[in-house]
This record gives sequence, structure tokens and C-alpha cells, in this order.
Amino acid sequence: MLITSLDNSKVKDYKKLQLRKYREKKKQFIVEGSHLVLEAFKTGRIEELILEKDEIFPLDVETVYVTNEIINKISTLEVPQNIMALCNMKSSDFLGKRILLLDEIQDPGNLGTIIRSAVAFNIDTIVLGNNTVDVYNPKVLRASQGMIFHINIISKPIDEVISKLKEDGFTIYGTKVTHGDNLKNIDAPLKYAIVMGNEGNGMTEEITKLCDKFIYIDMNQNCESLNVGVATSIILYQLNK
Amino acid sequence: MLITSLDNSKVKDYKKLQLRKYREKKKQFIVEGSHLVLEAFKTGRIEELILEKDEIFPLDVETVYVTNEIINKISTLEVPQNIMALCNMKSSDFLGKRILLLDEIQDPGNLGTIIRSAVAFNIDTIVLGNNTVDVYNPKVLRASQGMIFHINIISKPIDEVISKLKEDGFTIYGTKVTHGDNLKNIDAPLKYAIVMGNEGNGMTEEITKLCDKFIYIDMNQNCESLNVGVATSIILYQLNK
Repeated sequence: MLITSLDNSKVKDYKKLQLRKYREKKKQFIVEGSHLVLEAFKTGRIEELILEKDEIFPLDVETVYVTNEIINKISTLEVPQNIMALCNMKSSDFLGKRILLLDEIQDPGNLGTIIRSAVAFNIDTIVLGNNTVDVYNPKVLRASQGMIFHINIISKPIDEVISKLKEDGFTIYGTKVTHGDNLKNIDAPLKYAIVMGNEGNGMTEEITKLCDKFIYIDMNQNCESLNVGVATSIILYQLNK
Repeated sequence: MLITSLDNSKVKDYKKLQLRKYREKKKQFIVEGSHLVLEAFKTGRIEELILEKDEIFPLDVETVYVTNEIINKISTLEVPQNIMALCNMKSSDFLGKRILLLDEIQDPGNLGTIIRSAVAFNIDTIVLGNNTVDVYNPKVLRASQGMIFHINIISKPIDEVISKLKEDGFTIYGTKVTHGDNLKNIDAPLKYAIVMGNEGNGMTEEITKLCDKFIYIDMNQNCESLNVGVATSIILYQLNK
């Protein structure tokens, strides 16, 4: 299929997916650039491959060719890519045994980095609490390097998820800058969840009360705290067996 | 001292420090916001505290009061801060025993994060090779959370530094995504240096040849690589005793 009109209804739908509320309504989002498109393809998440009309990118999926003008309209990048894909959101209620709970992470780059590290260190599910940046935000997708397609991600209030996990025998680890057990001494049980809090304020008091134990990363006293993406990655690295 | 004219020579000098070449010529740079100013103060690096005229920030250093108009002219931030400081660059040729060599790191956020983690995990000196982003770039300063004042940072060609370190009995660790020794099994000697390469391309071939050993971080095969700030931080965490 070749589309040349900016007024085509498909083009309008693609464009609307730049907005979070429309992405959530349609359960769809767009990724840009060959790397992200390939990661989406590997995991069977592409609904439509969107190519600029002379582009060759031979994937066995439905392909829509568009003009350069349309690419520019749909893209969220300063330098638009001529390879994109319309993808579907997908998540499972089966959480697995190693869970990462994110409580109010705000920065798209941090969330993307955390997703990338969570895949690297074998987390089964990431739970995004309220007030967490949208995981389908284009900046998150790029920072995740497409790893978003390789991990189960759900959005749900953290307190509800913790209650359920506790019933199922999970240990809930909170994270604090200086209190609790030194990460290097943690012997994690078979089923556990780790809670990471907001960049500036850490975990909310409400969620702190629900944790069973707390982890800290031993640091030089000149350094007050680590970047939250770094802290999360170090914890996941250490607990990965 | 109160300055009210935008044409004052001090104001012109502050403004010029937005440019790397002028910073390098004057061996000075400006930090913005109370957090960075306090870190600079703790380490005796402030030459002049620059305050908007009604601001109170009682530090025992030479203080220059300026108008809001001048603050806006000097600032590199979208929302300028009314507390700034003119600081001096300072570095020591005494490198210590744990060295981090950065080869062509490009992203200011990554460099800032790496500096923050290097302080946290007791690195003595960071060496910035050619083609590395300027460490006094305001974005680097912010991402470092002021940790730049708590560590020795020098700029020098990496190959020259490696030659010198080898003569002094240092072990030089390169980093690769899949080859070498698993980070979890490394027993680091007393004196060592770690080389981290460029975001997209890793270490240059020239530098790779100079390394004694290579480290990799064991990861799930779905994940090709980690963010360079994260990878560096995990390595420094693991090797910190």
C-alpha cells in the first residue's frame, strides 16, 4: 500500500499516537529507526511496517509505504527516520519470580536505561506505578534500545501489586540511600521484588511501610546518592545469579 | 560589590565562560544552583560567589551581587538560578591507585553520571582522552551532581597515560561486551586502570591493543549492551573493596 496524502486516515491515526492518551486508548505506539523496528519484529509486535516509499527493509509483515512529507509529519525526531513500525502494547498478568516495581520515576532517559538493564539482568516483570513517565514515550523507547519488547511491563498501583506479591510469598525489598542491608551481603530468595523510588525524593512513605527489608549501596561519603538508573542497574546486576 | 550594568567587564567575562575555548583559556567555569555551589564551596574551589542582589547565601568567599537581568545573561539554564559561582579548574598529576580512563565519551549526561559513580566507588583519578565531551560543560556539571569537585580529573591522550601507568606497574583493564573475564570473577590488583569507550563504538582499536586484560558484564542474550554510564558504574561498584 502506498499513501501519498497527508489527510489519509491512517496518517492521522499515526500522528495521534504521539499523544499518550491516544496510545493508551488504541493500545498501540510507533517506534522509529531500524534498530527499534528490528527488536519489535523479533518479538512479533509489529502491526504495520511504515517505510518511506523507496526504502527497502524486507520483513514479513504488512507494509505501508508513505512519502517523505508523511514521515516528517508522523516522526517525533529532529532527524526523522525513514523506517518506522506501528506496534501493539502487550502485557501478561503472569509476573514471574523477579519483579521490579517503579514508584514515580519521572525521567524518560532513566526509565529507558532501567528497562535495558532489567532485560540484561533477567528481571521477569516491571511494574510501573502511578505518576511514572509513560513507557511508550518515544524518548523512553529510544533509551531502552528496544529492550521494551523483551520484558513484561504492566501499569498498576504499586501498593496493590505488593499486597498480592506478599500473599504469594515474595520478599519485598525497598531501597534507601544509607539504611538497611548492604547490597553486597544480600542473599536474595527465590521470589522477590525490588522497589525503586522517584529521582529526587526516593520511595513514598506509603510504599516504604509496605517493604519487608531495605537495601543500600555502600558508597564514599562524599557522594550523597547515585543516579536512579545506575542504582537500579547495580542492584539488578548484583542480585542476578 | 554590586554590578548593575550588562556591559560591566566581569559580566562579559562570566558570559564568555559559556564557551569551552574560553573556559580552557581562563581555567575557570561557572556552576549554577545552590547544590553545585555548595559542593564547590566544600572543596575550596569558589573564586567568586555570584548572587542576585536580594539573595542571601552566607558563604565566606568573595561575593558579587548582580541584577536579575545579568543572571539571565550569564545563565545557561532555561530557568536561571539566582545563586552561581565562578570556580577554578584544578587537577593533580598525582593519579593515585585506581584510575578510570574515558576514551571518546560523547554524551554530557553519561559523563556526569560516570563522575558521580566514580566518586561513590572511590576512583582516584579520571582521565579524559581526546574527543571526550568537555567536563566543564554545564550539562556534565549538573549530571555529576557537583561530584566533579570531589575527584581528580585530567585531560590527556589515553595512550600516553597507559604507557606511563604500565611503567608504574598498573594493570590496564579494557572493557568488551562479550570477551575477556566475567566481572564477577575479577580479583583486581592494588593498582589498576579501567578503560571505557565511546557510546556507539566502544574502545578504539589503538587503545584496545594497549590493554592487559578485558572485562565483560554477564548479561541476558536479548540485551546487546548496557548504557555506558551504567556499565561503568557496575564495574566500579564491583571492583570497589
